[in-house]
Amino acid sequence: MSYNKTASITAETINPKVKIFDYEPCGEIARHAERLEQEMEKSPGSRPFPEITYCNLGNPQALGQRPITFFREVLSLCDNPALLRRDETRMLFSPCAINRARKIIESMPGRNSGAYTNSQGIRSLREAVASGIAARDGFPSRPEDIFLTDGASSAINLSMQILIRSQEDGVLCPLPEYPLYSASIILHGGTMVPYNLSEDGDWGLEIFEVKRCLEEARIAGLTVRAMVIINPGNPTGQVLSVTNQEEIVEFCRKEGLVMLADEVYQDNVYVEDRKFHSFKKVARSLGYDENDISIVSFHSVSMGFSGECGRRGGYMEICGFGDDVMGEIRKVASVTLCPNIGGQILTSLAMDPPKLGDGCFENFMAEKEDIRLSLAKRAKTLAGAFSSLEGMTCNRVEGAIYAFPRIHLPAAAIKAAKAEGMSPDLFYACRLLDATGIAVVPGSGFHQVSGRNKATGTWHIRCTILPGEDKIKVMIPRLKEFHESFMNEFRDRS
Amino acid sequence: MSYNKTASITAETINPKVKIFDYEPCGEIARHAERLEQEMEKSPGSRPFPEITYCNLGNPQALGQRPITFFREVLSLCDNPALLRRDETRMLFSPCAINRARKIIESMPGRNSGAYTNSQGIRSLREAVASGIAARDGFPSRPEDIFLTDGASSAINLSMQILIRSQEDGVLCPLPEYPLYSASIILHGGTMVPYNLSEDGDWGLEIFEVKRCLEEARIAGLTVRAMVIINPGNPTGQVLSVTNQEEIVEFCRKEGLVMLADEVYQDNVYVEDRKFHSFKKVARSLGYDENDISIVSFHSVSMGFSGECGRRGGYMEICGFGDDVMGEIRKVASVTLCPNIGGQILTSLAMDPPKLGDGCFENFMAEKEDIRLSLAKRAKTLAGAFSSLEGMTCNRVEGAIYAFPRIHLPAAAIKAAKAEGMSPDLFYACRLLDATGIAVVPGSGFHQVSGRNKATGTWHIRCTILPGEDKIKVMIPRLKEFHESFMNEFRDRS
Repeated sequence: MSYNKTASITAETINPKVKIFDYEPCGEIARHAERLEQEMEKSPGSRPFPEITYCNLGNPQALGQRPITFFREVLSLCDNPALLRRDETRMLFSPCAINRARKIIESMPGRNSGAYTNSQGIRSLREAVASGIAARDGFPSRPEDIFLTDGASSAINLSMQILIRSQEDGVLCPLPEYPLYSASIILHGGTMVPYNLSEDGDWGLEIFEVKRCLEEARIAGLTVRAMVIINPGNPTGQVLSVTNQEEIVEFCRKEGLVMLADEVYQDNVYVEDRKFHSFKKVARSLGYDENDISIVSFHSVSMGFSGECGRRGGYMEICGFGDDVMGEIRKVASVTLCPNIGGQILTSLAMDPPKLGDGCFENFMAEKEDIRLSLAKRAKTLAGAFSSLEGMTCNRVEGAIYAFPRIHLPAAAIKAAKAEGMSPDLFYACRLLDATGIAVVPGSGFHQVSGRNKATGTWHIRCTILPGEDKIKVMIPRLKEFHESFMNEFRDRS
Repeated sequence: MSYNKTASITAETINPKVKIFDYEPCGEIARHAERLEQEMEKSPGSRPFPEITYCNLGNPQALGQRPITFFREVLSLCDNPALLRRDETRMLFSPCAINRARKIIESMPGRNSGAYTNSQGIRSLREAVASGIAARDGFPSRPEDIFLTDGASSAINLSMQILIRSQEDGVLCPLPEYPLYSASIILHGGTMVPYNLSEDGDWGLEIFEVKRCLEEARIAGLTVRAMVIINPGNPTGQVLSVTNQEEIVEFCRKEGLVMLADEVYQDNVYVEDRKFHSFKKVARSLGYDENDISIVSFHSVSMGFSGECGRRGGYMEICGFGDDVMGEIRKVASVTLCPNIGGQILTSLAMDPPKLGDGCFENFMAEKEDIRLSLAKRAKTLAGAFSSLEGMTCNRVEGAIYAFPRIHLPAAAIKAAKAEGMSPDLFYACRLLDATGIAVVPGSGFHQVSGRNKATGTWHIRCTILPGEDKIKVMIPRLKEFHESFMNEFRDRS
């Protein structure tokens, strides 16, 4: 029998796991914004705003964050090592960067920055990462436990691939969640076990709630293998307290859960009363070593002061998995050969930056602090602006790069959304985009409202704090004006 | 009930799909070579050779291939766009590279090379790739159909993820195969349907053999969804004739199979009587458009004259999948956000290199031709050397970067291998490595002997042609000496 072309590949015949997940940060609003932008290019002035303000994606450099000079100089030299032999180079690059680039090139296979590396990443760069972790935590870290990766997302995917055997395997994930997690769990054939963060408790994590979800999942026949914790939080912007972190460590240890600690916002903390502590540090401080608890920590160069999203650099530190499992992870990593070298270099620089005494230390620190202080200011301004709006409440943005205000939508707005076949928060986000050019992600994109939990029926938007201070100044009055007219249109008249 | 730590993650409790595949190019021989290298570092002179010759991995720059100057200059400038505003830059970079870098930076989100890009890759770079494909084939190519990727391997994984629904879905793959394919099919839960290449027919592909395998698979209840063709071949080094390619296109069209065309060695062709033709070009030349046949073509910057393996740049061109499927592919791609920017830039440069009239054209062409001519020379020398050995036969290395000689092993050697619990080709490869420092991959690593096919019981090694001409000159006598003594030890005495 012979098959015809139409049977070979259609949306009906692709992997159904691909079809069922949704990924809103790149979904409806992103496409809508792109359409608007194209429309405005064709007919300038057709909209009451000059440009789209992309607050939907955590993409610092697209919104004007400057890269760290030292990082880019080192990258540039490693790409073109011939420069290291030229005198003129000293006119264009700092001695600091020249030294570091030389050291990196020396440690590369074939003394060249274009060969496949070890699948875990170049050893000397992993050593730099491990020493950065040890300095951060005050506890040792080993280069054997570090996997350099193409950003945190590929590391998270790899972890799910290792952990998930079937639909009977569950992974605890926070709600609202960063939707990479549900996508990755679905794609690898497992089951997401959601637990609710507490909006009333500064988006903290209540152990009794997690325990309830774990028990429900077990009763339903699932083997829960791991727990994802995002700290600082995305989309929620909270920074967990040490006490809360200790409870989580105790819980995972007792229940035999692998901790998947998404710590990519570790350098984005804005409030005096909170500090970042890695889960590994918290566990070690409690006296637990790798025989007591398994922890994977994910980090990347995409956020923090580097903001190098497009470079796809990151690492995972895997503790407590045993040599045989590590061998299997190395094998899977070797299928895609190695992480990209530019990302590997950047990751080593971010974790092992210039030190006091290095020529470029002061400039580096100044650039870093500028970014942090400005983000802290914007976090406060935006959260304040949202809180000041009728029917909106917004927790403090303690960390990460998002405000996640709750909108108490009037019944008429919810009805109007339904009539257009949209969730109410998407309806609000579309109206906001059309009126102001401000693109945000509706809370439902983070599965905030995926049923069977008390948060059902609450509506949110996620708005990055990334537009420059000048832009935020312009953005806030536009936001206020829109919100007022939206509320006027739909306000409950009871 | 509370679980103890030991239950949380062990080699017994990880995803079994991870456990069952093997990936020999990074396996036994690679580890053995690494151990030897460490041993030699500790006690220099402990072995009768000065260094390990890594002929096991296709890693050009690790073995001394020089990167193309133009490529590295552009990369270096894009990493550090501040250079574009400095006069001194003209002393260090060609005007050609400066112009190209300026053009690339202008087209980037935020005019910055560190932001997330579109998940398919930056549009202008996809346009450059599409124009390169059109110039190569003489048929149009559209940037919408191009996905820039972190090397070809991630593109291949993505394709398998889209195509495979369950173990009942099969994918036709050549034997000997590049083991990424079996690994990827297993990891995505499908079934590999192997077909044999014909060693006697210059490693060509015999349609009756593929048809036989397809029919057997269908009788066994499989839905065969796609056919992988590697051209030029890995590990076999053949370049398919146009007639053979036409047969394959007709076959896939008639049988409703998606063609997965691994064309990463398209710039590695060394013989006068063979040329590279993309499968898309062959299909279009036969008058078939995207309504007639679905083709995915994979390419990367890792091989060819660029040899930029560690940069993880590549693309896939997807033709004939329909808009809804393309939407799903975009969604899956967006889960890992975007391919790395350095790889994206390199891919655009490789597909849209300097043209006649550009200032750096001559230098670029000279570098490119140097690499090609030297590889052609090495291909001939190595294949000749292997053929000259007792009990060895070696097909012409028409393309790619591998010689894949067959070893007719004496019965005593096969017995000795069995006694050590090794496959005979691994036994030979280990002995070769221990005696000479030359690392090659045993043919069984390419599943050459995975049963139920007529090639069972033939033994091969894969040896890259990548060591420099000087090194090959030293390597050949060592190889000959080893082989002679191996044969003396095991020669059949009947």
